[in-house]
Amino acid sequence: MTKELEKLFEFLRFPSVSTASQHRDDMRECAEWLSSQLTAAGLTSRLEETPGNPVVLAHSKRDPAKRTVMIYGHYDVQPVDPLDLWQTPPFKPVLRDDKIYARGATDNKGQILSHVLGTAKYIEQHGSLPVNLIYLVEGEEEIGSPHLAPLLESHRDELACDVIVVSDTGMLAPGVPTFTYGLRGIAACELQLSGPSVDLHSGSFGGAVANPATWAARLVAALHDENRRVAIPGFYDNVRDLEDWEREAWKPLEISDEEMAQLTGASTADGEFGYSNNERLWARPTAEVNGIHSGYGGEGTKTVLPSAAIVKLSFRLVPDQTPEEILLKTTEYLRAICPESINLEIHSGHSGPPYLVDPYSDFGKAAARALAKTFGAETKMIREGGSIPIVQSFKEILGVDTLLLGLALPDSNTHSPNENFPVANFEAGMRLNGEVLEELAAV
Amino acid sequence: MTKELEKLFEFLRFPSVSTASQHRDDMRECAEWLSSQLTAAGLTSRLEETPGNPVVLAHSKRDPAKRTVMIYGHYDVQPVDPLDLWQTPPFKPVLRDDKIYARGATDNKGQILSHVLGTAKYIEQHGSLPVNLIYLVEGEEEIGSPHLAPLLESHRDELACDVIVVSDTGMLAPGVPTFTYGLRGIAACELQLSGPSVDLHSGSFGGAVANPATWAARLVAALHDENRRVAIPGFYDNVRDLEDWEREAWKPLEISDEEMAQLTGASTADGEFGYSNNERLWARPTAEVNGIHSGYGGEGTKTVLPSAAIVKLSFRLVPDQTPEEILLKTTEYLRAICPESINLEIHSGHSGPPYLVDPYSDFGKAAARALAKTFGAETKMIREGGSIPIVQSFKEILGVDTLLLGLALPDSNTHSPNENFPVANFEAGMRLNGEVLEELAAV
Repeated sequence: MTKELEKLFEFLRFPSVSTASQHRDDMRECAEWLSSQLTAAGLTSRLEETPGNPVVLAHSKRDPAKRTVMIYGHYDVQPVDPLDLWQTPPFKPVLRDDKIYARGATDNKGQILSHVLGTAKYIEQHGSLPVNLIYLVEGEEEIGSPHLAPLLESHRDELACDVIVVSDTGMLAPGVPTFTYGLRGIAACELQLSGPSVDLHSGSFGGAVANPATWAARLVAALHDENRRVAIPGFYDNVRDLEDWEREAWKPLEISDEEMAQLTGASTADGEFGYSNNERLWARPTAEVNGIHSGYGGEGTKTVLPSAAIVKLSFRLVPDQTPEEILLKTTEYLRAICPESINLEIHSGHSGPPYLVDPYSDFGKAAARALAKTFGAETKMIREGGSIPIVQSFKEILGVDTLLLGLALPDSNTHSPNENFPVANFEAGMRLNGEVLEELAAV
Repeated sequence: MTKELEKLFEFLRFPSVSTASQHRDDMRECAEWLSSQLTAAGLTSRLEETPGNPVVLAHSKRDPAKRTVMIYGHYDVQPVDPLDLWQTPPFKPVLRDDKIYARGATDNKGQILSHVLGTAKYIEQHGSLPVNLIYLVEGEEEIGSPHLAPLLESHRDELACDVIVVSDTGMLAPGVPTFTYGLRGIAACELQLSGPSVDLHSGSFGGAVANPATWAARLVAALHDENRRVAIPGFYDNVRDLEDWEREAWKPLEISDEEMAQLTGASTADGEFGYSNNERLWARPTAEVNGIHSGYGGEGTKTVLPSAAIVKLSFRLVPDQTPEEILLKTTEYLRAICPESINLEIHSGHSGPPYLVDPYSDFGKAAARALAKTFGAETKMIREGGSIPIVQSFKEILGVDTLLLGLALPDSNTHSPNENFPVANFEAGMRLNGEVLEELAAV
């Protein structure tokens, strides 16, 4: 085992689960360990306190003649349950079939540490870096980065840079360098419907009193039309059409309905009529029910007319939709449908705008070249369906673009049991670090 | 306190909750106590064993010259939770404002014991009864009477009678004698929808995979049209129209939208357009969601695309609909709507046909006279929205009608905390027993 792999195993042994308060001390120890690695690499590193977990903040020696690049990542990980589905314990990393199995192996410890160790190697070999480098590694990404935007605001000068590099997205397949130039945004809300003050006997009152479960269902059913398009008036008003080059570039990458079924366990793909699966996932907005709950859910029958219902909704957004616009249109639409006999409250949840960067900008092309050199293959340009709201904060607060150079594979099981990261991707990440810094320096 | 009230308190102290297996011994002790009261009244009483709780079966001495009447009731009670909402413990009966507070006070211990003690008084005063009398008091009514129909079959000869009297329904208001001549039937089913094999990330897959929560909502929404009518094809085919006399008789009994709001805590009544609230409850069928559950229900947001959803449905039926017909039509309709991308299973639950008796038959008129004499007021003729499936079994197996002469008040809190029974109704029940036996004897 290489000494880099040994370092990764050390990193993976910290149970740095940010959502669980009992791991608060583990979070700090993990951050201190990572900071010491950055110091060992030759950078000046410290922990920056926040109201939550500390942020690891490191700098190379500043040379005003050089461009400044920031690398962002996170040292916190998702919870491990269901624990019984793991083949080996999540915080005891093992090598199996040339993959590292552990919680965080891919998301994001393996990826961020490959950058850190790549940087260390580069300095060892070249004496210095081709750019001024900043590392910003937070411990709250998996809980929505609640304290990062304020830190960007308060450290605006210190974090000033020309461009940001993040390895926290996916590759299309092993060995296929993948540049993610767009992410969907998100807008979440919760519907709370109430009717009678208590659950009623459905025999004594059914037929003369509005049922909140029925109306929750009607509101949800009203979200789409028969072509699987979102039926909220004005929902598509600000949706930017796909560019021709995107449609062309994505054609060879198309996921067939059968592949989608294979990947998800569903019997077939199903979505907005008239669009390919990649278009549905990367360039079309959605209205999704994350949860709906009302009334009896146990065994057998309980003949109640429920007093209340809740619906958890989230919308994935694409340029140029905004969360504010979509939540407003949704609220107006649902309020107009809901009858007087049902009390409807709509509470906004977390949100983040969609993100799109020009992959053919100078920095974009530099990143694509770095990926191609690292893997010895042509870089594919994709968008992703998920959301990384902090990327938009980088744009708004620091005024710079983020280049998403992901190293996760479709079967890396991020957020799931048996998360894993191929040793080949870990090594590619170390090479990628040098390549991308050189390419960005040369622009 | 009268000695009859002392007896009722004894009866109410047995925690005879049929749904809870830890009360099995309490059930038997309660049945034995009741049987001893019937023996004390002058009847021959025994416990008849079933695979569940025993049935109390008692006979007066048989005189072939007399008509035979059976009185049905139950000694089991509903569970007591939520216990913290009770003002006094449910199995420690107390008198408060001339009402008896305890679980079972109204449903059904107070009502059935008023018959038993009324019979005892009658025999004490008159030496014998005007009819041959059978008591059939079961211990499983609150769990759907699973063992009663087989007992009716196997004891057909012993239970042969001319008519059945049941006091287990409601009165319109205090002092208003109320004859319930119709009950709605019921047909229940559960929809199980499944899509992907596990909950998916709604960013990574949302838009290209069918969401079982969304489709559960669409199936539910398809149950009704915009006039609140059930939209299942053929659903109303066999619905018998209200007779003119019924419509007239119910007009003065109408519950206004405001009263319905008051009664239920809903902001207003709401149901099938073009019908009054009593018509909606007593003579129109319904499709009701008793529960719907899918995906995340906790605090905040979890951006999953759920793998499955369940919906608990029940239909209240009116003459001449049948549960079999309605479940078949429902299944065909929902299957036609559900797309290939969602796997839909439909499981039938418990069911019972609607019940209707002619209130102007000789027995019906006799019962109405007995009620009027008991309360000194004109008897009101109503139907009820709930279901008592065993009544239909009496008709099918024993071939006789059931007269529903209820003593429960709208605020008796049956099935709820602080169940209560007015002392006046307990005493009326004892008088009613003598009146109805005399009236039925005289037909």
